Amino acid sequence: MALLGWDQEVTMPTGGARARAGHRAALAEVIHEKLIDPELGTLLTDLTPDTTLPPAARANLRELKRERDRAIRLPAELVRDLAEASALAQPEWARARDEDDWDRFAPHLTRLVTLKRREAAALTDEGSPYDALLDSFEPGAKVAELVPVFDRLRTALTDLIGRFTVEAPAVLPGPFPVSGQATLSRQVLEAMGYDFAAGRIDISAHPFTETMGLGDVRITTIYHEADVLSGISSSMHEGGHALYEQGLPEEHRETPAGHSLSLGIHESQSRLWENHVGRSLPFCRWLLPSLKDQFPDLLTDLTVNELYQASNVVRPSLIRTDADEVTYSLHIVLRMELEQALIEGDLEAADVPAAWNSKVRQYLGIDVPNNRTGALQDIHWCSGAFGYFPSYTLGNLYGAMFWQTARQDLPDLDDQMAAGNLAPLLQWLRTNIHERGSILTASDLCREVTGQDLTADHFIAYLETKFGALQTL
Amino acid sequence: MALLGWDQEVTMPTGGARARAGHRAALAEVIHEKLIDPELGTLLTDLTPDTTLPPAARANLRELKRERDRAIRLPAELVRDLAEASALAQPEWARARDEDDWDRFAPHLTRLVTLKRREAAALTDEGSPYDALLDSFEPGAKVAELVPVFDRLRTALTDLIGRFTVEAPAVLPGPFPVSGQATLSRQVLEAMGYDFAAGRIDISAHPFTETMGLGDVRITTIYHEADVLSGISSSMHEGGHALYEQGLPEEHRETPAGHSLSLGIHESQSRLWENHVGRSLPFCRWLLPSLKDQFPDLLTDLTVNELYQASNVVRPSLIRTDADEVTYSLHIVLRMELEQALIEGDLEAADVPAAWNSKVRQYLGIDVPNNRTGALQDIHWCSGAFGYFPSYTLGNLYGAMFWQTARQDLPDLDDQMAAGNLAPLLQWLRTNIHERGSILTASDLCREVTGQDLTADHFIAYLETKFGALQTL
Repeated sequence: MALLGWDQEVTMPTGGARARAGHRAALAEVIHEKLIDPELGTLLTDLTPDTTLPPAARANLRELKRERDRAIRLPAELVRDLAEASALAQPEWARARDEDDWDRFAPHLTRLVTLKRREAAALTDEGSPYDALLDSFEPGAKVAELVPVFDRLRTALTDLIGRFTVEAPAVLPGPFPVSGQATLSRQVLEAMGYDFAAGRIDISAHPFTETMGLGDVRITTIYHEADVLSGISSSMHEGGHALYEQGLPEEHRETPAGHSLSLGIHESQSRLWENHVGRSLPFCRWLLPSLKDQFPDLLTDLTVNELYQASNVVRPSLIRTDADEVTYSLHIVLRMELEQALIEGDLEAADVPAAWNSKVRQYLGIDVPNNRTGALQDIHWCSGAFGYFPSYTLGNLYGAMFWQTARQDLPDLDDQMAAGNLAPLLQWLRTNIHERGSILTASDLCREVTGQDLTADHFIAYLETKFGALQTL
Repeated sequence: MALLGWDQEVTMPTGGARARAGHRAALAEVIHEKLIDPELGTLLTDLTPDTTLPPAARANLRELKRERDRAIRLPAELVRDLAEASALAQPEWARARDEDDWDRFAPHLTRLVTLKRREAAALTDEGSPYDALLDSFEPGAKVAELVPVFDRLRTALTDLIGRFTVEAPAVLPGPFPVSGQATLSRQVLEAMGYDFAAGRIDISAHPFTETMGLGDVRITTIYHEADVLSGISSSMHEGGHALYEQGLPEEHRETPAGHSLSLGIHESQSRLWENHVGRSLPFCRWLLPSLKDQFPDLLTDLTVNELYQASNVVRPSLIRTDADEVTYSLHIVLRMELEQALIEGDLEAADVPAAWNSKVRQYLGIDVPNNRTGALQDIHWCSGAFGYFPSYTLGNLYGAMFWQTARQDLPDLDDQMAAGNLAPLLQWLRTNIHERGSILTASDLCREVTGQDLTADHFIAYLETKFGALQTL
């Protein structure tokens, strides 16, 4: 399934869409059949977890039961319809986005929302049906618990936007040839410790990381000639995901205990590399010479402080993936609100652009000129991933907590980053997070690594400190 | 399975081999389980084919019964072991070939031969166990029937080699940059009618064509800087396979009746485009200006006759895929003899290089300097494809028969080829072969299209005429 998805985004010719939809649907059905097999149920019932089992075995039981419980509630026909609908929707979304043509995508979104409502209803006993969709990406997450955290963040971020603005210095004019950007991305990924013999990097409309196996973890990225920093950020973000996958425990490979944990934990890794490392002053110090080597004529006079400022522009903008650290989570808040309304039946697909544009105006203070830079910008909905977006913000919160602990454990981290020596940080992440797979739950892992439960405090404090200092650079 | 295979050859990082072997094995097992499902058996028994069923329905029953009968005889464990062994062997073969290291490949070949002997034994009631392997590529083919045809061919070809030699004119010195060769291959494939929106072209060590679905038929090819013609031939060969796949009947898609017929018929299509079209004087007339456009400085004085001669050098050589039309089938004869001996237990994997080299000496009159250009040159054995090679020669025989009929039906074919107008030929192939899928058997199709049973007469006569004329050009 991973390969069918990766290939569809990266290598498949357009004419392959119809057959691909059928293949994904057929394979989804095979997997579903295996999960609901009564023999598996008997085995899982017999294997009552007790504390004498090793932790990985308990994790395997926990995760397999969870997945099986979800599968049993979902009719095979619905699973098949969802796989097929999303495979058909993806190329249409890509064309709709390119051509700014909402009407091309609308019937696919309507179909997907109808199916996702059915899925949520089948999985829900009590509370919001949206909880059931959240749970498939972030086990245990609930609307009722997330909304207060998101509200607090929104208030804090709105306040920060008002106080902190960082303008782009006019020192990175471009255009930056894509081939040079690709070389630079490879250099950065190599410094991060990404193993190219166990992966590859390609281009796709929406960058993503896909794992075929422990030795085959692939990244995609995208380069814009006008903005050299966006390509580096995109590559570091996906590199962070990929390092997590490449570092999962070999001894538990191909069992649930050897899988990555929740998407929130996954996103903590991508955000940590993209933001805490990639947008830091020490990293800019290391990056500057490589940047100048690659584009000598364009960047002769660029200073470290200018590069640091250019990496940390704070400005409300339209595209989520290009958003800065301060405004990013506001993009997530609006998407979560729309998703919740769609799934709870308070919003229809046809009305999404109007609702989207209104919220962008309200939270970010800007107007959306077209759907290409509005409701058509993300790949998530067309691939059926409703409930996925909140994990990005959970990733920011977990990421800031892990970062604070890592800094305490690695007192020389700034000097190491400035020297391009990222190995100690990677080793810390390997030991504390990657190599533990799914043995602990996300909340237990967070507590064990940081000594605290999930909190937004560290993320807000990190932004306060960093962007406060940037005001007087 | 098609995508797992294509990706492994074209895009997979080396570290992915272990996981990929597991995935291919697991999927092979799922397919096997579905084929041997008793419910399918009951359905097939109930649906006794009778003449009131439409021809496509009868073909579906015929092919599904054949496939199921084979599957029932094969233990699931053997199917799984074979898929895993070949996935593991492929990267090792590629390295062994690159490093001319037989010992690296030998244990994998031993394992594969052991498993294929077991497979052949399970499928055989009487006659040579090699028949059972032939049957999976060329339904109904028998050693006892092929050997006399092959013997006759060998005698005729040995005679032709003695009488007809065509030396390479020293007019294509190179080196020809790969990017220019790639542009040229695209032009040729477009002229042939290959639909790039329903396919793509990549590079791989051993060129092949793989079908993910009717709208997704992919070609790989390989370019050598020293030899611009080998890249064009390789692309046209795979293009011929791909045109067949792209032209299969839409109404029968994803049923056996909508599949391509035997590999012999498949190879008739690739050979027809590669040799009968691509190595003809009229096609050289069309190709020459494009070739000069692409490499203006290298080919200023090249004439059509020189290009025609250079495309038809007759010279015994080491590499099957580079062999000319006259010597090619001798490469096949020796492989079939070795395969038969391996499967019947008369030869062990360790002794293959010595046996190979001895036969090359005997049939082609040349010495094999290393295993890289000897027993390690082909991908077939490492992917478990024993019994595949003879279909290449069957393709030459069917191809020559179809070609003769097409020429009768298309009296202007030479002029059309010289003008680069290949559409009438493609339409003839579509109507007579591609659009009929697997509704008829190979022998019935041959009889219906050409009015004759399989014969080597036309192939030998074609070579006599063409290379006779080339002697006095």
